[in-house]
Amino acid sequence: METLNGLKRTHYCGDLRESNIDEEVVLMGWVQKKRNLGGLVFVDLRDRSGICQIIFDTDVNAEAFAKAEKLGSEFVIAVKGKVAERSSKNPNLPTGDIEIFATELRILNKSETPPIYIKDDDNVSEELRLKYRYLDLRKPSMQKNLILRSKVASIVRNYLSQNNFCEIETPFLIKPTPEGARDYLVPSRVNEGKFYALPQSPQLFKQLLMVSGMDRYFQIVKCFRDEDLRADRQPEFTQIDCEMSFVEQEDVMEIMEKMVQTIFKEILNVEVSLPLPKMTYAEAMERYGSDKPDTRFGYELTNISDIVANCGFGVFANATKAGMSVRGINVEGKADDFTRKQITHLEDHAKTYRAKGLAWMKVGADREVTSPIAKFFTPEELTSILDRMNAKEGDLLLFVADKDTVVFDALGQVRLEVARRLDLLDNSTYKMLWVTEFPVFEEDEENGRFIAKHHPFTSPMDEDIDKLESGDKASLRAKAYDIVINGYEVGGGSVRIFNADVQQKMFKALGMTEEEANEKFGFLIDAFKYGTPPHAGIAFGLDRLIMILAGTTNIKDVIAFPKNQSAVCPMTNAPAPADDTQLQELSIRVALEEK
Amino acid sequence: METLNGLKRTHYCGDLRESNIDEEVVLMGWVQKKRNLGGLVFVDLRDRSGICQIIFDTDVNAEAFAKAEKLGSEFVIAVKGKVAERSSKNPNLPTGDIEIFATELRILNKSETPPIYIKDDDNVSEELRLKYRYLDLRKPSMQKNLILRSKVASIVRNYLSQNNFCEIETPFLIKPTPEGARDYLVPSRVNEGKFYALPQSPQLFKQLLMVSGMDRYFQIVKCFRDEDLRADRQPEFTQIDCEMSFVEQEDVMEIMEKMVQTIFKEILNVEVSLPLPKMTYAEAMERYGSDKPDTRFGYELTNISDIVANCGFGVFANATKAGMSVRGINVEGKADDFTRKQITHLEDHAKTYRAKGLAWMKVGADREVTSPIAKFFTPEELTSILDRMNAKEGDLLLFVADKDTVVFDALGQVRLEVARRLDLLDNSTYKMLWVTEFPVFEEDEENGRFIAKHHPFTSPMDEDIDKLESGDKASLRAKAYDIVINGYEVGGGSVRIFNADVQQKMFKALGMTEEEANEKFGFLIDAFKYGTPPHAGIAFGLDRLIMILAGTTNIKDVIAFPKNQSAVCPMTNAPAPADDTQLQELSIRVALEEK
Repeated sequence: METLNGLKRTHYCGDLRESNIDEEVVLMGWVQKKRNLGGLVFVDLRDRSGICQIIFDTDVNAEAFAKAEKLGSEFVIAVKGKVAERSSKNPNLPTGDIEIFATELRILNKSETPPIYIKDDDNVSEELRLKYRYLDLRKPSMQKNLILRSKVASIVRNYLSQNNFCEIETPFLIKPTPEGARDYLVPSRVNEGKFYALPQSPQLFKQLLMVSGMDRYFQIVKCFRDEDLRADRQPEFTQIDCEMSFVEQEDVMEIMEKMVQTIFKEILNVEVSLPLPKMTYAEAMERYGSDKPDTRFGYELTNISDIVANCGFGVFANATKAGMSVRGINVEGKADDFTRKQITHLEDHAKTYRAKGLAWMKVGADREVTSPIAKFFTPEELTSILDRMNAKEGDLLLFVADKDTVVFDALGQVRLEVARRLDLLDNSTYKMLWVTEFPVFEEDEENGRFIAKHHPFTSPMDEDIDKLESGDKASLRAKAYDIVINGYEVGGGSVRIFNADVQQKMFKALGMTEEEANEKFGFLIDAFKYGTPPHAGIAFGLDRLIMILAGTTNIKDVIAFPKNQSAVCPMTNAPAPADDTQLQELSIRVALEEK
Repeated sequence: METLNGLKRTHYCGDLRESNIDEEVVLMGWVQKKRNLGGLVFVDLRDRSGICQIIFDTDVNAEAFAKAEKLGSEFVIAVKGKVAERSSKNPNLPTGDIEIFATELRILNKSETPPIYIKDDDNVSEELRLKYRYLDLRKPSMQKNLILRSKVASIVRNYLSQNNFCEIETPFLIKPTPEGARDYLVPSRVNEGKFYALPQSPQLFKQLLMVSGMDRYFQIVKCFRDEDLRADRQPEFTQIDCEMSFVEQEDVMEIMEKMVQTIFKEILNVEVSLPLPKMTYAEAMERYGSDKPDTRFGYELTNISDIVANCGFGVFANATKAGMSVRGINVEGKADDFTRKQITHLEDHAKTYRAKGLAWMKVGADREVTSPIAKFFTPEELTSILDRMNAKEGDLLLFVADKDTVVFDALGQVRLEVARRLDLLDNSTYKMLWVTEFPVFEEDEENGRFIAKHHPFTSPMDEDIDKLESGDKASLRAKAYDIVINGYEVGGGSVRIFNADVQQKMFKALGMTEEEANEKFGFLIDAFKYGTPPHAGIAFGLDRLIMILAGTTNIKDVIAFPKNQSAVCPMTNAPAPADDTQLQELSIRVALEEK
């Protein structure tokens, strides 16, 4: 192998243009392709910026030509040469107007045949891609995603700095708080038998920074949750974390939607018009069956409970009588796009979201209804349903009857599934909105208690604050807000409680004794005694935001070294067994048998 | 308490000037001081930007005046008022030319008497400062440090982005490698009995990013080492981590010293002239007894071994005969500044660095030597020593005889201690240099083996690479470089091995079998087979750099929420015992008895 020995790169491969013709350049990169043609060797040389064609001609430099003949795929080389106008131009390549006649070639490293192809449409398994991540990341699309991510972080930082936010690092080794999601624990060696937790978010620290008068804080920061993984979830994820003092909900929304506008303009050249629409949680559930509605398409939910309250179809009538609801969506004009079998697939989909079934009607000419359940309704009831659903010839109506929570969830998911099947989800359209007035509490049905919908530091709305002690927990609304883009919750935040009394009442409402609250959050309650300003904040999921900007639906495509679904890194084989000595130093022991 | 209810801040307190006179402003912040004077209430209102004087006058607004009388220290208030020229100007305050006549006052929150004073010269214990960190961080000096830190990070990011570096996040949950410092471990729940480690640095991942062709990477990133804490060490610390492809040592040095130059110019308005001086490791040890020499002052080391080889002073003669060395420093002109007792203190200092003693001579008129050991030398020997040491009247000479490693360390530390006692360490002078040609290996005397001085991925110098297998390990020099500012190692890096064979030889030289090497670093050796470019990098300690820029010697002053010397957070009481249920889920058990 040869060395650089003072040789300096002059250009990146992808940057050369006609204006460089006749310049002597030095390029360095990887052999994407080599072919012999008409006594010449052609090499496509690749670096981060793109590809450039190099020609080795024995008449130009015999030594370089001889070496070039021995090149293989993914060899690392340095080439000195002269830029020339290309004889047969390639309009599909940014550098397609030029080529380089090589006067010197150094082979800096060789390569065995790589186990995966270095091209975007490679169809290899995800596991193999992760095992050879360093090769997978050679793909132009992956490099584009990482560069995009770096750019977005830079735009965010500049925007927030210009708006007086100060980036402050908060600790990674914090106190475990068995609350909300599961913590990753870190055994302490010095403090035997004790544990740190990795932060699920810097929530408490950013609030304490407001207590300390830092006024406007942000951080782009890794957070950790030890939850079972889904396609769009990783054990570690990155947040754009913000907090502001002396502001109300509207101030946070205004400054943050401008940030989103700036990102979309600078990255995609997409104009986002502000202010973004706002929708209450209640309205979002009623209309979309979701607190993160995808508003790129219609098919909104309609409540027909009153119409079917006394109908002959037991499922509908009984549900209504039991205080549940019957709701439907009108898949307008698409009756013919769904066979019975396909509707059964939709029903299966609804059932995975706890619905007991999915009723359907197809509307024909003269609003004639085809449906297994049509016979249970009087003609007047059918007409009322069709009227309410705005149904006309060619429409497909889908219904779910159940508790509201189930109806919303199942029908909301069916609505999305229908859109996917009809290919309505255009990833180059961006529909954004704020969802507001979230419930303070949600019911933990399994344990029969109320838990915080957002987190225990979220302020109830002013008019609801006195109800904290009343008992009607389900009705309390919070000063909480999510920003939703194309059905993804991209960010969420709230106005915080900043009064020690209210905070204590909140902990009590969540079932904590004062002792427990002090044990877990005593320092926060203490801090609230010494002049805490009103404050509010928000956190954006950076991974998800980049996913949307990159137009991918796989979160692993925007993370350099992600884990697989088993929280394993197939490249390094993390996690791995630990040394006994080290475990002893940490005062812990592996105890598989206790499970 | 009152609410903002739509009230918006118009200015920060510290920003108001004469040009704002007659404007109506809304300020929000903390009551720094309140006093009644001549029927008026004067309040110093503080926010992140500074302090502004507010006057409550019952003739201007009686309600506001009445409320103001009830204000206490650290109350949080919002004030509306009109800016006026101050009657008695305060030239010591940026806002000293103006004052605000309040027309409205809202008390947003009260405060109990804070347990620590909110002022810079507060003398409270560090433990109390950490317990009430949210109050400690209200001190102007602490806020200044955090803002400085945010600015430096921003300058670094902009500089590196402009130089084609891409910020890429590497994982925090990685594979444990029992090598070098102690890892923090994180038990895996899903993969029972296995552990992640928190990264000591992103070393392997940044090298893999070079393999993947990302070309120039950087990251400002938290790293973790479970070592016993010293004053300037924290369990988690922040690195500016960089890696570049297709470069050599000089390229990294050039681009990085320009970054340092940019930081010092933008933050301190200090001009750093480039290129920085370079000094080999060998020279740094010979002259300063340290691989991070503080070159703000002289007192360099001088070798007198040859002169004293046969002298009558057994300590010197025997050391020399045993192949050790005798070296001294000349504390020029300071003989009278050190009493015998003070020299004994210096000797004690030397002994903590393993020296057996510290010999001294004071030089009087006509170069007459006062010294307990003078009698052991012939006049010729004394003259030779004085000549070699460049000694003249009024000089204090200090000597250590021992193995080179001990002599360098002890005398180097005595040199620093002398400078501290003479108050020579001017924190507004910045002396920077590169130290190069570090040894590849250092001897682990305890275990009688060689370990990597930098890390096992550092390339030996070209002329030394063949010696990897020869056995003369102590003599091998590496392509490694540290940047040193005022005696602090602020950054360190190296050219990396990028050839699988050389890497295997390195692992072997470090005593690993091929199997062990593959088990630990197989993915890296694999990666090197598929076209790895030459690459090199560096990592800066951000905390230390900020410490120097902020002119403090306490690293806790530049970290928002540091741990104490026991790795405990006195505010939150982290670490803490964990739930049994959670430990069971993680398949671990606390085993205190095993220690």
